Amino acid sequence: MTHTAPPHAALQEAALTWFEGLRDALCTTFEAIEDEARTSTGQPAGRFVRTAWQRPTEDGSPGGGGVISLLKGRVFEKVGVNVSTVFGTFSPEFRSHIPGAEQDPRFWASGISLVAHMCSPRVPAAHFNTRMLVTRQGWFGGGGDLTPLRLDTPEAIADAADLQAAFRAACDRHDPACYPRYKEWCDRYFYLPHRNEPRGAGGIFFDQHVSGDAAADLAFTQDVGRAFLDAFPRIVRRRMGEAWTPAEREALLVKRGRYVEFNLLYDRGTLFGLKTGGNVEAILMSLPPEVRWP
Amino acid sequence: MTHTAPPHAALQEAALTWFEGLRDALCTTFEAIEDEARTSTGQPAGRFVRTAWQRPTEDGSPGGGGVISLLKGRVFEKVGVNVSTVFGTFSPEFRSHIPGAEQDPRFWASGISLVAHMCSPRVPAAHFNTRMLVTRQGWFGGGGDLTPLRLDTPEAIADAADLQAAFRAACDRHDPACYPRYKEWCDRYFYLPHRNEPRGAGGIFFDQHVSGDAAADLAFTQDVGRAFLDAFPRIVRRRMGEAWTPAEREALLVKRGRYVEFNLLYDRGTLFGLKTGGNVEAILMSLPPEVRWP
Repeated sequence: MTHTAPPHAALQEAALTWFEGLRDALCTTFEAIEDEARTSTGQPAGRFVRTAWQRPTEDGSPGGGGVISLLKGRVFEKVGVNVSTVFGTFSPEFRSHIPGAEQDPRFWASGISLVAHMCSPRVPAAHFNTRMLVTRQGWFGGGGDLTPLRLDTPEAIADAADLQAAFRAACDRHDPACYPRYKEWCDRYFYLPHRNEPRGAGGIFFDQHVSGDAAADLAFTQDVGRAFLDAFPRIVRRRMGEAWTPAEREALLVKRGRYVEFNLLYDRGTLFGLKTGGNVEAILMSLPPEVRWP
Repeated sequence: MTHTAPPHAALQEAALTWFEGLRDALCTTFEAIEDEARTSTGQPAGRFVRTAWQRPTEDGSPGGGGVISLLKGRVFEKVGVNVSTVFGTFSPEFRSHIPGAEQDPRFWASGISLVAHMCSPRVPAAHFNTRMLVTRQGWFGGGGDLTPLRLDTPEAIADAADLQAAFRAACDRHDPACYPRYKEWCDRYFYLPHRNEPRGAGGIFFDQHVSGDAAADLAFTQDVGRAFLDAFPRIVRRRMGEAWTPAEREALLVKRGRYVEFNLLYDRGTLFGLKTGGNVEAILMSLPPEVRWP
Protein backbone atom coordinates (compact mmCIF):
# COMPACT_ATOMS: atom_id res chain seq x y z
CA MET A 1 0.00 0.00 0.00
CA THR A 2 1.06 3.56 -0.62
CA HIS A 3 1.56 6.36 1.88
CA THR A 4 -2.19 7.08 1.58
CA ALA A 5 -2.98 3.65 3.02
CA PRO A 6 -5.30 3.56 6.04
CA PRO A 7 -3.99 2.26 9.39
CA HIS A 8 -5.60 -1.09 8.50
CA ALA A 9 -2.78 -1.70 6.05
CA ALA A 10 -0.41 -2.17 8.98
CA LEU A 11 -2.76 -4.83 10.41
CA GLN A 12 -2.83 -7.13 7.38
CA GLU A 13 -0.48 -9.73 8.83
CA ALA A 14 -2.21 -9.64 12.22
CA ALA A 15 -5.69 -9.97 10.67
CA LEU A 16 -4.75 -12.85 8.43
CA THR A 17 -2.98 -14.64 11.26
CA TRP A 18 -6.09 -14.20 13.40
CA PHE A 19 -8.44 -15.55 10.74
CA GLU A 20 -6.24 -18.61 10.20
CA GLY A 21 -5.90 -19.21 13.91
CA LEU A 22 -9.64 -18.91 14.44
CA ARG A 23 -10.19 -21.35 11.57
CA ASP A 24 -7.84 -23.83 13.23
CA ALA A 25 -9.60 -23.46 16.59
CA LEU A 26 -13.03 -23.95 15.00
CA CYS A 27 -11.89 -27.00 13.04
CA THR A 28 -10.30 -28.57 16.09
CA THR A 29 -13.46 -28.00 18.12
CA PHE A 30 -15.75 -29.40 15.42
CA GLU A 31 -13.58 -32.50 15.05
CA ALA A 32 -13.73 -32.97 18.83
CA ILE A 33 -17.54 -32.79 18.62
CA GLU A 34 -17.46 -35.41 15.86
CA ASP A 35 -15.44 -37.64 18.21
CA GLU A 36 -17.85 -37.10 21.11
CA ALA A 37 -20.95 -38.02 19.11
CA ARG A 38 -22.48 -41.38 19.85
CA THR A 39 -24.07 -42.76 16.72
CA SER A 40 -25.84 -46.02 16.18
CA THR A 41 -25.03 -46.09 12.47
CA GLY A 42 -21.33 -46.78 12.86
CA GLN A 43 -20.51 -43.74 10.75
CA PRO A 44 -16.99 -42.59 11.59
CA ALA A 45 -16.18 -39.18 13.07
CA GLY A 46 -15.72 -36.59 10.34
CA ARG A 47 -12.38 -34.94 9.62
CA PHE A 48 -11.64 -31.71 7.79
CA VAL A 49 -10.09 -31.92 4.34
CA ARG A 50 -8.28 -28.80 3.15
CA THR A 51 -8.16 -27.60 -0.45
CA ALA A 52 -6.16 -24.57 -1.50
CA TRP A 53 -7.26 -22.35 -4.37
CA GLN A 54 -5.65 -19.48 -6.23
CA ARG A 55 -7.46 -16.39 -7.41
CA PRO A 56 -6.86 -16.01 -11.15
CA THR A 57 -6.11 -12.54 -12.47
CA GLU A 58 -6.47 -11.23 -16.00
CA ASP A 59 -2.77 -10.49 -16.46
CA GLY A 60 -1.51 -13.51 -14.54
CA SER A 61 -0.17 -11.41 -11.67
CA PRO A 62 -0.56 -12.77 -8.13
CA GLY A 63 -4.09 -12.30 -6.81
CA GLY A 64 -4.00 -14.28 -3.61
CA GLY A 65 -6.26 -17.20 -2.85
CA GLY A 66 -7.55 -19.25 -0.02
CA VAL A 67 -8.03 -22.58 1.67
CA ILE A 68 -11.37 -24.38 2.01
CA SER A 69 -11.64 -26.70 4.99
CA LEU A 70 -14.53 -29.09 4.50
CA LEU A 71 -15.86 -31.73 6.87
CA LYS A 72 -18.68 -34.19 6.17
CA GLY A 73 -19.42 -36.01 9.37
CA ARG A 74 -21.97 -37.60 11.65
CA VAL A 75 -22.90 -34.40 13.52
CA PHE A 76 -21.89 -31.84 10.91
CA GLU A 77 -23.48 -33.10 7.71
CA LYS A 78 -21.42 -30.49 5.85
CA VAL A 79 -19.38 -27.72 7.40
CA GLY A 80 -17.08 -25.54 5.35
CA VAL A 81 -14.63 -22.98 6.64
CA ASN A 82 -12.95 -20.82 4.04
CA VAL A 83 -10.06 -18.49 4.80
CA SER A 84 -9.06 -16.29 1.91
CA THR A 85 -6.64 -13.45 1.36
CA VAL A 86 -7.06 -11.76 -2.00
CA PHE A 87 -5.62 -8.60 -3.50
CA GLY A 88 -5.44 -6.75 -6.78
CA THR A 89 -7.38 -3.99 -8.48
CA PHE A 90 -11.15 -3.64 -8.74
CA SER A 91 -12.54 -3.62 -12.26
CA PRO A 92 -14.01 -0.27 -13.39
CA GLU A 93 -17.64 -1.28 -12.79
CA PHE A 94 -16.97 -2.01 -9.11
CA ARG A 95 -14.81 0.99 -8.25
CA SER A 96 -17.71 3.33 -7.64
CA HIS A 97 -19.39 0.84 -5.27
CA ILE A 98 -16.43 0.26 -2.96
CA PRO A 99 -15.40 2.92 -0.44
CA GLY A 100 -11.93 4.26 -1.21
CA ALA A 101 -11.67 2.44 -4.53
CA GLU A 102 -12.78 5.27 -6.77
CA GLN A 103 -9.48 7.14 -6.45
CA ASP A 104 -7.31 4.02 -6.31
CA PRO A 105 -8.69 0.63 -7.42
CA ARG A 106 -6.20 -1.45 -5.44
CA PHE A 107 -7.60 -3.63 -2.68
CA TRP A 108 -6.57 -6.21 -0.14
CA ALA A 109 -9.10 -8.38 1.66
CA SER A 110 -8.78 -11.21 4.11
CA GLY A 111 -11.47 -13.08 5.94
CA ILE A 112 -12.95 -16.23 7.35
CA SER A 113 -16.33 -17.62 6.30
CA LEU A 114 -18.13 -20.59 7.80
CA VAL A 115 -21.39 -22.40 7.09
CA ALA A 116 -22.48 -25.50 9.02
CA HIS A 117 -25.38 -27.71 7.96
CA MET A 118 -26.16 -30.30 10.61
CA CYS A 119 -27.34 -33.90 10.30
CA SER A 120 -29.88 -33.48 13.09
CA PRO A 121 -32.97 -31.32 12.64
CA ARG A 122 -32.60 -30.49 16.34
CA VAL A 123 -29.25 -28.72 15.87
CA PRO A 124 -29.43 -25.29 14.19
CA ALA A 125 -27.43 -24.54 11.06
CA ALA A 126 -24.94 -21.73 11.53
CA HIS A 127 -23.24 -19.07 9.48
CA PHE A 128 -20.30 -16.95 10.59
CA ASN A 129 -17.85 -14.67 8.84
CA THR A 130 -15.52 -11.79 9.51
CA ARG A 131 -13.22 -9.92 7.18
CA MET A 132 -10.92 -6.94 6.82
CA LEU A 133 -10.94 -4.82 3.68
CA VAL A 134 -8.21 -2.37 2.72
CA THR A 135 -8.49 0.15 -0.10
CA ARG A 136 -7.52 3.79 0.55
CA GLN A 137 -9.93 3.19 3.36
CA GLY A 138 -10.04 0.20 5.69
CA TRP A 139 -12.86 -1.52 7.54
CA PHE A 140 -14.13 -4.72 9.08
CA GLY A 141 -17.32 -6.61 8.33
CA GLY A 142 -18.96 -9.85 9.29
CA GLY A 143 -21.59 -11.50 11.38
CA GLY A 144 -23.05 -14.78 12.48
CA ASP A 145 -26.47 -16.30 12.87
CA LEU A 146 -28.40 -19.50 13.51
CA THR A 147 -30.96 -21.18 11.27
CA PRO A 148 -32.98 -23.69 13.29
CA LEU A 149 -35.67 -25.82 11.66
CA ARG A 150 -38.35 -23.90 13.54
CA LEU A 151 -38.10 -20.50 15.18
CA ASP A 152 -40.82 -20.97 17.77
CA THR A 153 -39.64 -23.92 19.87
CA PRO A 154 -38.26 -23.29 23.38
CA GLU A 155 -35.01 -24.91 22.25
CA ALA A 156 -34.60 -22.63 19.23
CA ILE A 157 -35.37 -19.58 21.33
CA ALA A 158 -32.84 -20.65 24.00
CA ASP A 159 -30.14 -21.36 21.41
CA ALA A 160 -30.66 -18.02 19.69
CA ALA A 161 -30.53 -16.26 23.06
CA ASP A 162 -27.26 -18.06 23.88
CA LEU A 163 -25.57 -16.90 20.68
CA GLN A 164 -27.01 -13.41 21.03
CA ALA A 165 -25.72 -13.13 24.61
CA ALA A 166 -22.24 -14.08 23.44
CA PHE A 167 -22.34 -11.55 20.59
CA ARG A 168 -23.77 -8.88 22.89
CA ALA A 169 -20.96 -9.37 25.41
CA ALA A 170 -18.37 -9.18 22.60
CA CYS A 171 -19.89 -5.99 21.21
CA ASP A 172 -20.41 -4.35 24.60
CA ARG A 173 -16.72 -4.68 25.47
CA HIS A 174 -16.09 -2.18 22.65
CA ASP A 175 -19.16 -0.01 22.08
CA PRO A 176 -22.61 -0.62 23.58
CA ALA A 177 -24.18 1.04 20.54
CA CYS A 178 -22.98 -1.75 18.26
CA TYR A 179 -24.99 -4.73 19.43
CA PRO A 180 -28.53 -3.37 18.93
CA ARG A 181 -27.56 -1.98 15.53
CA TYR A 182 -25.85 -5.15 14.36
CA LYS A 183 -28.60 -7.43 15.68
CA GLU A 184 -31.25 -5.38 13.85
CA TRP A 185 -29.09 -5.35 10.70
CA CYS A 186 -28.97 -9.15 10.79
CA ASP A 187 -32.77 -9.42 11.05
CA ARG A 188 -33.17 -7.00 8.14
CA TYR A 189 -30.49 -8.64 5.99
CA PHE A 190 -31.34 -12.33 6.40
CA TYR A 191 -34.89 -12.00 5.17
CA LEU A 192 -36.71 -13.60 2.21
CA PRO A 193 -39.10 -10.96 0.87
CA HIS A 194 -40.69 -13.34 -1.65
CA ARG A 195 -41.77 -15.60 1.21
CA ASN A 196 -42.18 -12.83 3.73
CA GLU A 197 -40.13 -14.82 6.25
CA PRO A 198 -36.76 -14.53 7.99
CA ARG A 199 -33.99 -16.91 6.93
CA GLY A 200 -33.16 -17.80 10.50
CA ALA A 201 -33.34 -16.95 14.18
CA GLY A 202 -31.05 -13.94 14.09
CA GLY A 203 -27.56 -13.03 15.20
CA ILE A 204 -25.48 -10.03 14.17
CA PHE A 205 -24.48 -8.55 10.83
CA PHE A 206 -22.15 -5.62 10.25
CA ASP A 207 -20.18 -3.95 7.50
CA GLN A 208 -18.01 -0.84 7.28
CA HIS A 209 -17.20 -1.21 10.97
CA VAL A 210 -14.85 1.76 11.53
CA SER A 211 -14.45 3.29 14.98
CA GLY A 212 -11.45 5.42 14.10
CA ASP A 213 -9.07 3.02 15.85
CA ALA A 214 -8.19 0.21 13.45
CA ALA A 215 -6.42 -1.89 16.09
CA ALA A 216 -9.51 -1.67 18.31
CA ASP A 217 -11.65 -2.72 15.36
CA LEU A 218 -9.47 -5.78 14.83
CA ALA A 219 -9.85 -6.54 18.54
CA PHE A 220 -13.64 -6.16 18.14
CA THR A 221 -13.58 -8.56 15.20
CA GLN A 222 -11.54 -11.01 17.26
CA ASP A 223 -14.03 -10.82 20.12
CA VAL A 224 -16.89 -11.50 17.72
CA GLY A 225 -14.98 -14.56 16.51
CA ARG A 226 -14.32 -15.76 20.06
CA ALA A 227 -18.03 -15.33 20.85
CA PHE A 228 -19.00 -17.61 17.98
CA LEU A 229 -16.26 -20.11 18.87
CA ASP A 230 -17.61 -20.16 22.42
CA ALA A 231 -21.34 -20.28 21.78
CA PHE A 232 -21.91 -22.38 18.66
CA PRO A 233 -20.05 -25.52 19.82
CA ARG A 234 -21.91 -25.26 23.14
CA ILE A 235 -25.23 -25.14 21.27
CA VAL A 236 -24.27 -28.12 19.10
CA ARG A 237 -23.24 -30.17 22.13
CA ARG A 238 -26.49 -29.26 23.90
CA ARG A 239 -28.67 -30.49 21.01
CA MET A 240 -26.79 -33.23 19.22
CA GLY A 241 -27.95 -36.01 21.55
CA GLU A 242 -31.65 -35.24 21.07
CA ALA A 243 -33.65 -37.85 19.18
CA TRP A 244 -35.40 -36.75 16.03
CA THR A 245 -37.97 -38.20 13.63
CA PRO A 246 -37.83 -38.80 9.86
CA ALA A 247 -40.60 -36.19 9.51
CA GLU A 248 -38.34 -33.60 11.19
CA ARG A 249 -35.48 -34.53 8.90
CA GLU A 250 -37.77 -34.15 5.87
CA ALA A 251 -38.86 -30.73 7.18
CA LEU A 252 -35.19 -29.78 7.58
CA LEU A 253 -34.50 -30.59 3.91
CA VAL A 254 -37.38 -28.32 2.87
CA LYS A 255 -36.24 -25.57 5.26
CA ARG A 256 -32.80 -25.77 3.65
CA GLY A 257 -34.45 -24.82 0.36
CA ARG A 258 -35.14 -21.39 1.89
CA TYR A 259 -31.45 -21.13 2.74
CA VAL A 260 -30.55 -21.82 -0.90
CA GLU A 261 -33.14 -19.32 -2.11
CA PHE A 262 -31.69 -16.62 0.15
CA ASN A 263 -28.08 -17.27 -0.78
CA LEU A 264 -28.66 -17.38 -4.55
CA LEU A 265 -31.33 -14.68 -4.79
CA TYR A 266 -30.19 -12.10 -2.25
CA ASP A 267 -26.85 -12.71 -0.53
CA ARG A 268 -24.55 -9.88 -1.55
CA GLY A 269 -21.36 -11.81 -0.89
CA THR A 270 -22.51 -14.74 -3.02
CA LEU A 271 -23.66 -12.60 -5.94
CA PHE A 272 -20.60 -10.33 -5.75
CA GLY A 273 -18.28 -13.31 -5.61
CA LEU A 274 -19.87 -15.17 -8.51
CA LYS A 275 -20.03 -12.06 -10.69
CA THR A 276 -16.40 -11.12 -10.05
CA GLY A 277 -14.96 -14.50 -10.91
CA GLY A 278 -14.50 -15.62 -7.31
CA ASN A 279 -13.77 -19.23 -6.47
CA VAL A 280 -17.06 -21.05 -7.11
CA GLU A 281 -16.37 -23.90 -4.71
CA ALA A 282 -15.50 -21.48 -1.90
CA ILE A 283 -18.55 -19.29 -2.54
CA LEU A 284 -21.07 -22.10 -2.95
CA MET A 285 -19.61 -24.09 -0.04
CA SER A 286 -22.54 -22.48 1.80
CA LEU A 287 -25.15 -24.55 -0.03
CA PRO A 288 -26.66 -27.43 1.94
CA PRO A 289 -25.63 -31.00 1.11
CA GLU A 290 -29.18 -32.24 0.64
CA VAL A 291 -32.27 -30.14 -0.11
CA ARG A 292 -35.87 -30.71 -1.13
CA TRP A 293 -38.45 -28.58 -2.89
CA PRO A 294 -41.39 -30.99 -2.71
CA MET B 1 -57.88 -2.63 -24.08
CA THR B 2 -58.36 0.76 -25.73
CA HIS B 3 -58.57 1.59 -29.43
CA THR B 4 -54.75 1.73 -29.40
CA ALA B 5 -54.59 -1.99 -28.53
CA PRO B 6 -52.48 -4.20 -30.81
CA PRO B 7 -54.14 -6.97 -32.83
CA HIS B 8 -53.04 -9.37 -30.09
CA ALA B 9 -55.81 -7.98 -27.88
CA ALA B 10 -58.36 -9.70 -30.12
CA LEU B 11 -56.54 -13.02 -29.61
CA GLN B 12 -56.70 -13.11 -25.81
CA GLU B 13 -59.48 -15.66 -25.59
CA ALA B 14 -57.94 -17.83 -28.31
CA ALA B 15 -54.50 -17.74 -26.67
CA LEU B 16 -55.76 -18.59 -23.22
CA THR B 17 -57.94 -21.39 -24.58
CA TRP B 18 -54.92 -22.78 -26.42
CA PHE B 19 -52.68 -22.67 -23.34
CA GLU B 20 -55.31 -24.45 -21.25
CA GLY B 21 -55.93 -27.06 -23.94
CA LEU B 22 -52.21 -27.71 -24.33
CA ARG B 23 -51.92 -28.06 -20.56
CA ASP B 24 -54.71 -30.64 -20.59
CA ALA B 25 -53.09 -32.58 -23.43
CA LEU B 26 -49.71 -32.58 -21.69
CA CYS B 27 -51.22 -33.69 -18.37
CA THR B 28 -53.20 -36.49 -20.03
CA THR B 29 -50.09 -37.70 -21.84
CA PHE B 30 -47.93 -37.62 -18.73
CA GLU B 31 -50.55 -39.54 -16.73
CA ALA B 32 -50.66 -42.14 -19.51
CA ILE B 33 -46.87 -42.48 -19.25
CA GLU B 34 -47.21 -42.95 -15.49
CA ASP B 35 -49.68 -45.77 -16.20
CA GLU B 36 -47.37 -47.40 -18.75
CA ALA B 37 -44.35 -47.48 -16.43
CA ARG B 38 -43.43 -50.84 -15.01
CA THR B 39 -41.91 -50.38 -11.57
CA SER B 40 -40.66 -52.96 -9.15
CA THR B 41 -41.29 -50.72 -6.14
CA GLY B 42 -45.06 -50.89 -6.26
CA GLN B 43 -45.28 -47.11 -6.35
CA PRO B 44 -48.62 -46.11 -7.88
CA ALA B 45 -48.94 -44.13 -11.10
CA GLY B 46 -48.85 -40.39 -10.42
CA ARG B 47 -51.84 -38.14 -10.96
CA PHE B 48 -51.96 -34.38 -11.39
CA VAL B 49 -53.32 -32.29 -8.56
CA ARG B 50 -54.56 -28.83 -9.50
CA THR B 51 -54.31 -25.75 -7.28
CA ALA B 52 -55.75 -22.42 -8.29
CA TRP B 53 -54.16 -19.14 -7.18
CA GLN B 54 -55.20 -15.52 -7.43
CA ARG B 55 -52.87 -12.65 -8.19
CA PRO B 56 -53.20 -10.09 -5.40
CA THR B 57 -53.33 -6.42 -6.37
CA GLU B 58 -52.60 -3.39 -4.24
CA ASP B 59 -56.09 -1.95 -4.48
CA GLY B 60 -57.94 -5.27 -4.35
CA SER B 61 -59.05 -5.04 -7.97
CA PRO B 62 -59.06 -8.25 -10.05
CA GLY B 63 -55.54 -9.21 -11.20
CA GLY B 64 -56.11 -12.63 -12.66
CA GLY B 65 -54.38 -15.77 -11.46
CA GLY B 66 -53.60 -19.26 -12.50
CA VAL B 67 -53.75 -22.96 -11.91
CA ILE B 68 -50.76 -25.12 -10.98
CA SER B 69 -51.01 -28.75 -12.04
CA LEU B 70 -48.51 -30.82 -10.09
CA LEU B 71 -47.74 -34.53 -10.42
CA LYS B 72 -45.33 -36.53 -8.28
CA GLY B 73 -45.04 -39.95 -9.76
CA ARG B 74 -42.90 -42.96 -10.57
CA VAL B 75 -41.58 -41.64 -13.90
CA PHE B 76 -42.04 -37.92 -13.32
CA GLU B 77 -40.51 -37.30 -9.91
CA LYS B 78 -42.02 -33.81 -10.01
CA VAL B 79 -43.66 -32.18 -12.98
CA GLY B 80 -45.47 -28.88 -12.70
CA VAL B 81 -47.55 -27.20 -15.38
CA ASN B 82 -48.73 -23.70 -14.61
CA VAL B 83 -51.25 -21.82 -16.73
CA SER B 84 -51.74 -18.24 -15.71
CA THR B 85 -53.63 -15.26 -17.05
CA VAL B 86 -52.79 -12.03 -15.27
CA PHE B 87 -53.62 -8.41 -15.98
CA GLY B 88 -53.35 -5.00 -14.37
CA THR B 89 -50.92 -2.11 -14.51
CA PHE B 90 -47.13 -2.29 -14.31
CA SER B 91 -45.59 -0.44 -11.39
CA PRO B 92 -43.57 2.68 -12.35
CA GLU B 93 -40.17 0.95 -12.04
CA PHE B 94 -41.11 -1.67 -14.64
CA ARG B 95 -42.80 0.54 -17.20
CA SER B 96 -39.61 1.61 -18.89
CA HIS B 97 -38.46 -2.01 -19.29
CA ILE B 98 -41.59 -3.35 -20.97
CA PRO B 99 -42.31 -2.53 -24.63
CA GLY B 100 -45.46 -0.47 -24.96
CA ALA B 101 -45.86 0.07 -21.21
CA GLU B 102 -44.22 3.45 -20.99
CA GLN B 103 -47.18 5.28 -22.50
CA ASP B 104 -49.83 3.03 -20.92
CA PRO B 105 -48.95 0.77 -17.99
CA ARG B 106 -51.84 -1.64 -18.51
CA PHE B 107 -50.93 -5.22 -19.42
CA TRP B 108 -52.48 -8.60 -20.02
CA ALA B 109 -50.42 -11.78 -20.10
CA SER B 110 -51.31 -15.42 -20.46
CA GLY B 111 -49.04 -18.40 -20.72
CA ILE B 112 -48.15 -21.98 -19.96
CA SER B 113 -45.01 -23.01 -18.13
CA LEU B 114 -43.79 -26.54 -17.53
CA VAL B 115 -40.82 -28.09 -15.72
CA ALA B 116 -40.35 -31.85 -15.43
CA HIS B 117 -37.78 -33.47 -13.13
CA MET B 118 -37.57 -37.18 -13.75
CA CYS B 119 -36.95 -40.08 -11.33
CA SER B 120 -34.53 -41.77 -13.70
CA PRO B 121 -31.13 -40.27 -14.43
CA ARG B 122 -31.53 -41.71 -17.93
CA VAL B 123 -34.53 -39.49 -18.76
CA PRO B 124 -33.72 -35.82 -19.38
CA ALA B 125 -35.42 -33.06 -17.39
CA ALA B 126 -37.43 -30.69 -19.54
CA HIS B 127 -38.60 -27.12 -19.52
CA PHE B 128 -41.20 -25.60 -21.80
CA ASN B 129 -43.15 -22.36 -21.82
CA THR B 130 -45.03 -20.09 -24.18
CA ARG B 131 -46.88 -16.88 -23.45
CA MET B 132 -48.65 -13.92 -25.04
CA LEU B 133 -48.14 -10.40 -23.71
CA VAL B 134 -50.39 -7.47 -24.50
CA THR B 135 -49.60 -3.86 -23.67
CA ARG B 136 -49.99 -1.17 -26.34
CA GLN B 137 -47.84 -3.68 -28.15
CA GLY B 138 -48.32 -7.42 -28.30
CA TRP B 139 -45.93 -10.31 -28.67
CA PHE B 140 -45.24 -13.97 -27.99
CA GLY B 141 -42.37 -15.56 -26.11
CA GLY B 142 -41.33 -18.98 -24.94
CA GLY B 143 -39.09 -21.91 -25.53
CA GLY B 144 -38.25 -25.41 -24.45
CA ASP B 145 -35.12 -27.39 -23.69
CA LEU B 146 -33.78 -30.62 -22.26
CA THR B 147 -31.42 -31.09 -19.33
CA PRO B 148 -29.93 -34.57 -19.41
CA LEU B 149 -27.54 -35.75 -16.71
CA ARG B 150 -24.67 -35.73 -19.20
CA LEU B 151 -24.45 -33.94 -22.53
CA ASP B 152 -21.97 -36.26 -24.19
CA THR B 153 -23.71 -39.64 -24.27
CA PRO B 154 -25.15 -40.97 -27.55
CA GLU B 155 -28.57 -41.09 -25.85
CA ALA B 156 -28.44 -37.43 -24.75
CA ILE B 157 -27.31 -36.37 -28.20
CA ALA B 158 -30.10 -38.36 -29.87
CA ASP B 159 -32.76 -36.99 -27.49
CA ALA B 160 -31.62 -33.41 -28.01
CA ALA B 161 -31.63 -33.95 -31.79
CA ASP B 162 -35.17 -35.34 -31.58
CA LEU B 163 -36.51 -32.28 -29.74
CA GLN B 164 -34.55 -29.92 -31.98
CA ALA B 165 -35.94 -31.56 -35.11
CA ALA B 166 -39.48 -31.09 -33.80
CA PHE B 167 -38.83 -27.44 -32.96
CA ARG B 168 -37.10 -26.86 -36.28
CA ALA B 169 -40.09 -28.27 -38.21
CA ALA B 170 -42.48 -26.08 -36.18
CA CYS B 171 -40.39 -22.97 -36.81
CA ASP B 172 -39.77 -23.72 -40.49
CA ARG B 173 -43.50 -23.89 -41.18
CA HIS B 174 -43.57 -20.16 -40.38
CA ASP B 175 -40.18 -18.59 -41.02
CA PRO B 176 -36.96 -20.49 -41.73
CA ALA B 177 -34.99 -17.66 -40.12
CA CYS B 178 -36.51 -18.36 -36.71
CA TYR B 179 -35.06 -21.74 -35.81
CA PRO B 180 -31.33 -20.92 -36.04
CA ARG B 181 -31.90 -17.67 -34.13
CA TYR B 182 -34.04 -19.26 -31.43
CA LYS B 183 -31.75 -22.27 -31.04
CA GLU B 184 -28.73 -20.01 -30.58
CA TRP B 185 -30.69 -17.78 -28.17
CA CYS B 186 -31.42 -20.88 -26.05
CA ASP B 187 -27.74 -21.85 -25.88
CA ARG B 188 -26.81 -18.30 -24.91
CA TYR B 189 -29.59 -17.91 -22.35
CA PHE B 190 -29.36 -21.24 -20.51
CA TYR B 191 -25.75 -20.84 -19.51
CA LEU B 192 -24.05 -20.67 -16.10
CA PRO B 193 -21.20 -18.15 -16.43
CA HIS B 194 -19.89 -18.84 -12.90
CA ARG B 195 -19.36 -22.48 -13.84
CA ASN B 196 -18.64 -21.82 -17.48
CA GLU B 197 -21.07 -24.54 -18.47
CA PRO B 198 -24.47 -24.79 -20.23
CA ARG B 199 -27.52 -25.64 -18.13
CA GLY B 200 -28.66 -28.27 -20.55
CA ALA B 201 -28.53 -29.77 -24.02
CA GLY B 202 -30.32 -26.95 -25.81
CA GLY B 203 -33.65 -26.29 -27.43
CA ILE B 204 -35.18 -22.99 -28.45
CA PHE B 205 -35.76 -19.69 -26.64
CA PHE B 206 -37.55 -16.65 -28.00
CA ASP B 207 -39.08 -13.40 -26.84
CA GLN B 208 -40.73 -10.45 -28.57
CA HIS B 209 -41.77 -12.76 -31.40
CA VAL B 210 -43.61 -10.33 -33.70
CA SER B 211 -43.93 -11.06 -37.43
CA GLY B 212 -46.50 -8.36 -38.11
CA ASP B 213 -49.32 -10.91 -38.25
CA ALA B 214 -50.53 -11.63 -34.72
CA ALA B 215 -52.74 -14.56 -35.75
CA ALA B 216 -49.78 -16.16 -37.52
CA ASP B 217 -47.68 -15.64 -34.37
CA LEU B 218 -50.29 -17.43 -32.28
CA ALA B 219 -50.22 -20.24 -34.85
CA PHE B 220 -46.40 -20.31 -34.55
CA THR B 221 -46.72 -20.52 -30.75
CA GLN B 222 -49.22 -23.35 -31.13
CA ASP B 223 -46.88 -25.25 -33.43
CA VAL B 224 -44.04 -24.85 -30.92
CA GLY B 225 -46.35 -26.28 -28.26
CA ARG B 226 -47.39 -29.20 -30.49
CA ALA B 227 -43.71 -29.92 -31.19
CA PHE B 228 -42.96 -30.22 -27.48
CA LEU B 229 -46.10 -32.30 -26.89
CA ASP B 230 -44.96 -34.60 -29.68
CA ALA B 231 -41.27 -34.93 -28.88
CA PHE B 232 -40.89 -34.90 -25.10
CA PRO B 233 -43.29 -37.78 -24.32
CA ARG B 234 -41.58 -39.80 -27.07
CA ILE B 235 -38.18 -39.14 -25.44
CA VAL B 236 -39.51 -40.10 -22.01
CA ARG B 237 -41.01 -43.34 -23.32
CA ARG B 238 -37.75 -44.15 -25.11
CA ARG B 239 -35.65 -43.80 -21.95
CA MET B 240 -37.86 -44.66 -18.98
CA GLY B 241 -37.26 -48.41 -19.21
CA GLU B 242 -33.46 -48.11 -19.08
CA ALA B 243 -31.80 -49.42 -15.91
CA TRP B 244 -29.75 -46.97 -13.90
CA THR B 245 -27.32 -47.14 -10.98
CA PRO B 246 -27.37 -45.41 -7.58
CA ALA B 247 -24.22 -43.54 -8.68
CA GLU B 248 -26.10 -42.11 -11.66
CA ARG B 249 -28.96 -41.06 -9.40
CA GLU B 250 -26.48 -39.34 -7.05
CA ALA B 251 -24.92 -37.56 -10.03
CA LEU B 252 -28.42 -36.46 -11.10
CA LEU B 253 -29.05 -34.85 -7.70
CA VAL B 254 -25.79 -32.89 -8.03
CA LYS B 255 -26.60 -31.89 -11.63
CA ARG B 256 -29.94 -30.59 -10.38
CA GLY B 257 -28.00 -28.17 -8.18
CA ARG B 258 -26.84 -26.43 -11.38
CA TYR B 259 -30.47 -26.14 -12.41
CA VAL B 260 -31.29 -24.43 -9.11
CA GLU B 261 -28.28 -22.14 -9.45
CA PHE B 262 -29.39 -21.07 -12.92
CA ASN B 263 -33.00 -20.47 -11.99
CA LEU B 264 -32.27 -18.46 -8.83
CA LEU B 265 -29.19 -16.57 -10.06
CA TYR B 266 -30.03 -15.83 -13.69
CA ASP B 267 -33.50 -16.78 -14.90
CA ARG B 268 -35.26 -13.56 -15.83
CA GLY B 269 -38.75 -14.98 -15.43
CA THR B 270 -37.97 -16.27 -11.92
CA LEU B 271 -36.35 -13.04 -10.74
CA PHE B 272 -39.02 -10.86 -12.37
CA GLY B 273 -41.79 -12.94 -10.87
CA LEU B 274 -40.36 -12.98 -7.35
CA LYS B 275 -39.59 -9.27 -7.37
CA THR B 276 -43.04 -8.30 -8.64
CA GLY B 277 -44.97 -10.28 -6.05
CA GLY B 278 -45.79 -13.19 -8.32
CA ASN B 279 -47.13 -16.45 -6.94
CA VAL B 280 -44.14 -18.05 -5.21
CA GLU B 281 -45.39 -21.62 -5.53
CA ALA B 282 -46.02 -21.18 -9.26
CA ILE B 283 -42.64 -19.54 -9.86
CA LEU B 284 -40.57 -21.94 -7.76
CA MET B 285 -42.48 -24.97 -9.04
CA SER B 286 -39.43 -25.25 -11.33
CA LEU B 287 -37.09 -26.24 -8.49
CA PRO B 288 -36.16 -29.94 -8.35
CA PRO B 289 -37.72 -32.13 -5.65
CA GLU B 290 -34.37 -33.42 -4.36
CA VAL B 291 -30.97 -31.80 -4.81
CA ARG B 292 -27.44 -32.22 -3.49
CA TRP B 293 -24.48 -29.93 -3.15
CA PRO B 294 -21.96 -32.41 -1.75
